[in-house]
Amino acid sequence: MSIEADLAELKTRLQEIDDLQSTSAVLGWDQAVYMPPGGAAARGRQSALLSRLSHERMTDPAIGQLLDALTPWAAALDPDSDEASLIRVTRRDHDRATRVPSAFVQRVSAHLAASYHAWERARPANDFASVRPFLETTVALSRAYAGYYEGFNPAYTHPFDALIDLAEEGMTVAGVRALFDELRAGLVPLLAQIRTRPEIDDGCLKGDFPEEAQRAFGEAVIRAYGYDFTRGRQDKTAHPFMTKLGLGDVRITTRFKTDDLSEGLFSTLHEAGHAMYEQGIADELDGTPLFSGATSGVHESQSRLWENLVGRSRPFWRHYYGALQSAFPAQLNGVDDETFYRAVNRVSPSLIRTDADEVTYNLHIMLRFDLELALLDGSLAVADLPEAWRERMRSDLGVVPPDDTDGALQDVHWFGGLVGGAFQSYTLGNIMSAQFFAAARRDLPDLDGSTASGSFGDLKGWLTAHVYRHGRKFTAPEIVMRACGEPMSIAPYMAYLRAKYGALYGL
Amino acid sequence: MSIEADLAELKTRLQEIDDLQSTSAVLGWDQAVYMPPGGAAARGRQSALLSRLSHERMTDPAIGQLLDALTPWAAALDPDSDEASLIRVTRRDHDRATRVPSAFVQRVSAHLAASYHAWERARPANDFASVRPFLETTVALSRAYAGYYEGFNPAYTHPFDALIDLAEEGMTVAGVRALFDELRAGLVPLLAQIRTRPEIDDGCLKGDFPEEAQRAFGEAVIRAYGYDFTRGRQDKTAHPFMTKLGLGDVRITTRFKTDDLSEGLFSTLHEAGHAMYEQGIADELDGTPLFSGATSGVHESQSRLWENLVGRSRPFWRHYYGALQSAFPAQLNGVDDETFYRAVNRVSPSLIRTDADEVTYNLHIMLRFDLELALLDGSLAVADLPEAWRERMRSDLGVVPPDDTDGALQDVHWFGGLVGGAFQSYTLGNIMSAQFFAAARRDLPDLDGSTASGSFGDLKGWLTAHVYRHGRKFTAPEIVMRACGEPMSIAPYMAYLRAKYGALYGL
Repeated sequence: MSIEADLAELKTRLQEIDDLQSTSAVLGWDQAVYMPPGGAAARGRQSALLSRLSHERMTDPAIGQLLDALTPWAAALDPDSDEASLIRVTRRDHDRATRVPSAFVQRVSAHLAASYHAWERARPANDFASVRPFLETTVALSRAYAGYYEGFNPAYTHPFDALIDLAEEGMTVAGVRALFDELRAGLVPLLAQIRTRPEIDDGCLKGDFPEEAQRAFGEAVIRAYGYDFTRGRQDKTAHPFMTKLGLGDVRITTRFKTDDLSEGLFSTLHEAGHAMYEQGIADELDGTPLFSGATSGVHESQSRLWENLVGRSRPFWRHYYGALQSAFPAQLNGVDDETFYRAVNRVSPSLIRTDADEVTYNLHIMLRFDLELALLDGSLAVADLPEAWRERMRSDLGVVPPDDTDGALQDVHWFGGLVGGAFQSYTLGNIMSAQFFAAARRDLPDLDGSTASGSFGDLKGWLTAHVYRHGRKFTAPEIVMRACGEPMSIAPYMAYLRAKYGALYGL
Repeated sequence: MSIEADLAELKTRLQEIDDLQSTSAVLGWDQAVYMPPGGAAARGRQSALLSRLSHERMTDPAIGQLLDALTPWAAALDPDSDEASLIRVTRRDHDRATRVPSAFVQRVSAHLAASYHAWERARPANDFASVRPFLETTVALSRAYAGYYEGFNPAYTHPFDALIDLAEEGMTVAGVRALFDELRAGLVPLLAQIRTRPEIDDGCLKGDFPEEAQRAFGEAVIRAYGYDFTRGRQDKTAHPFMTKLGLGDVRITTRFKTDDLSEGLFSTLHEAGHAMYEQGIADELDGTPLFSGATSGVHESQSRLWENLVGRSRPFWRHYYGALQSAFPAQLNGVDDETFYRAVNRVSPSLIRTDADEVTYNLHIMLRFDLELALLDGSLAVADLPEAWRERMRSDLGVVPPDDTDGALQDVHWFGGLVGGAFQSYTLGNIMSAQFFAAARRDLPDLDGSTASGSFGDLKGWLTAHVYRHGRKFTAPEIVMRACGEPMSIAPYMAYLRAKYGALYGL
């Protein structure tokens, strides 16, 4: 066949895989948002079938043959071109997928659907015992999954390097540990300094905030950010998430607490950041493996950028505080914008990762990263996880969850996905969010002025040009280098934290 | 292979087909209920792919070979057994499916998704022109579809008999026409008599009825009927429907008008009737072609039974009127239960099929049946449909829609499905609803007393035993004969209408 025919054949096959994966996303969204409890068993079977069908297609030897035929042609192209990236990334996905039998993929999918459903009931009921057998199976499946990648990449030196690499290409257990050590060395003294200072009063965030007014305010902000509701929607779930159900359909979910204004608002801004990334990928990449965010870490950099670097900044509240006060005139009566700005940036060790302030957040991640490695290597039994969680919270953060609902049952990740590689990307995302924002600020000298006038088009345009539109064409280090002109580094992140919290706490 | 192995292999294949079809139902539900407009193109492609995959599997020659191997064994079984029915019905489905190429099925599915989406925008905008090209294609596809069945069944004498047979097995164009003539001969004089009498005042149904109170009342009724919300849910759509997303997940949708109490309530009761049928099918039939309602007509008999024979009856309102009055104390102040009962049974030619009273309803169906045959045989051009609709409304019902929103754009059927065979089942359902109800009354002498005390368990039990649990094991005439001990007949239906409306109008 000709190159044109081979490429067309490859794209047809990839489109079908993409459609099957998008269909899986519809099943997953519905399961989390609206499915009645009785539907769980059938939904698990449906999701497992779709996973198997798409995995079978991605591992079809015909894909390998088409890639073989197209590789010499692609090697002569500009490596930054869509076509060269398509061949490179599809090769990686195909080689990865062929390592794992379809039947295993289907089994994992069916198990995780049942596990997710059990977790949905267990978390509010503080019933860790009911999910323990599910998690034990998940740990065993995660080990088996990693086992399929033995010898896959010479860079792997730890048995679970494959799990990290799958979420965050190019990273290893040792690399993450080194990074976490460096970061901890910066964060711990900063937190210690902050704790010598008087606490910030965040009482203005507590009260009675009707859900509908919270929803309306949050949606007004993300509309202004540039989240397109004609190509998306927002619903409520126990655990907020973003999902793409196909080109033109990128949805988010949030949750509200009527006694806490920050919960719903910042979860909305966070998920909108993820969604704007997916909405901003070039349409031409639709139907291929390039049509999604680059890695979990780059994704998280976008959610955290819009949540924290924009949404918890002084210029942002200079613009929005008046509107918020109008939405809650009685609740915020007499509270000025500086008091409010300080409240949403209060540093205080707390129980819930997604509620954590910017300084303590990464300590939550390090806890999870260490515990999941311990679960995988067998040094921690699932039965002992709740107690291990409590101990680590006590030693790292000085607070102890009163129940498993806010402890080991807190996050969906280990109950709706495999264990290992689930959490480190949050911290990588924090690091990159500050690095991207610093680079955007260099290119957009009036960034703060735009934010203070509620105008986000320039920032979104910068991110679209440098991050969003590329989809998966480049790895995280490549995107950072292209966008920022320097390698990935924690320096901008620590500088941001030191400057912001130094000023807030008068350090 | 052994019989056991062949049967297991067949069931595995059928389970996968069923899971693909259930997944399609999830895509369809989401499209109608929550999908943002930007998702339409991708959704159309996803739905078309799923249709093709399930059609490919149903037409796999291996299914035919398994059926060939199992037929002698099944012939020796009790024909009423699940296994004998499974082989019989699967054979019919396989033979039907193999008539139509998978590529055609996928093309139809993609076209109908786009057409549905266009209709969703066109109906509120009264914009027939925008859907006209879609409907022209649908008519052409419907003709092509019927063409694949030429010579399929010796009973077919009309070019579009196949379209009727697919919806309502065993019926033909000529058979439906004969039945409609007989019914028209009973209905027209009854309506003429009614129109000589003073009109019933239904002013108590008009007013300002907050949606949330309507929803709460309707859901309380269908919970009492026996619709199980742990295995279902209700949402709002422009056009109410019921859909099964898998075992344990049977959903309904409704719509409310705040100025008209009857719209939302009776649409809720109607769709709940469909859903209770699906929820009542024996679990053992899950994963096979037997796991759905027998035919469109039998399905409609259940929705109409719970909507009309129960929900518009005197004993029903004897029980429920107090609760309704408590829900709308100001609106129903001074209205007694007899006045309300008469209002919900007012006979008055009107524009909207789903709002029509029991006497005029079937005239709406006859209009659609005749128009769709005319579209198919080319004697009516799609461009002329709106005018043909208006003329027929004028001559049959004496009322003319002021726009296409309430005229030719009124029903989803021609815009979300093929043309031909879509409507006759409503009237067959009306006929059977009365026949089943009369048989239930013979077996349950205190049926009215139970209804008057808000107790529906015996009726639901009777319907489950005689209709629901069988799924597709039997055809409509077989179910009627088994449940009622007599062949299908319009006599109980006309007797019901004459008795009820004779009393209401003092004829």
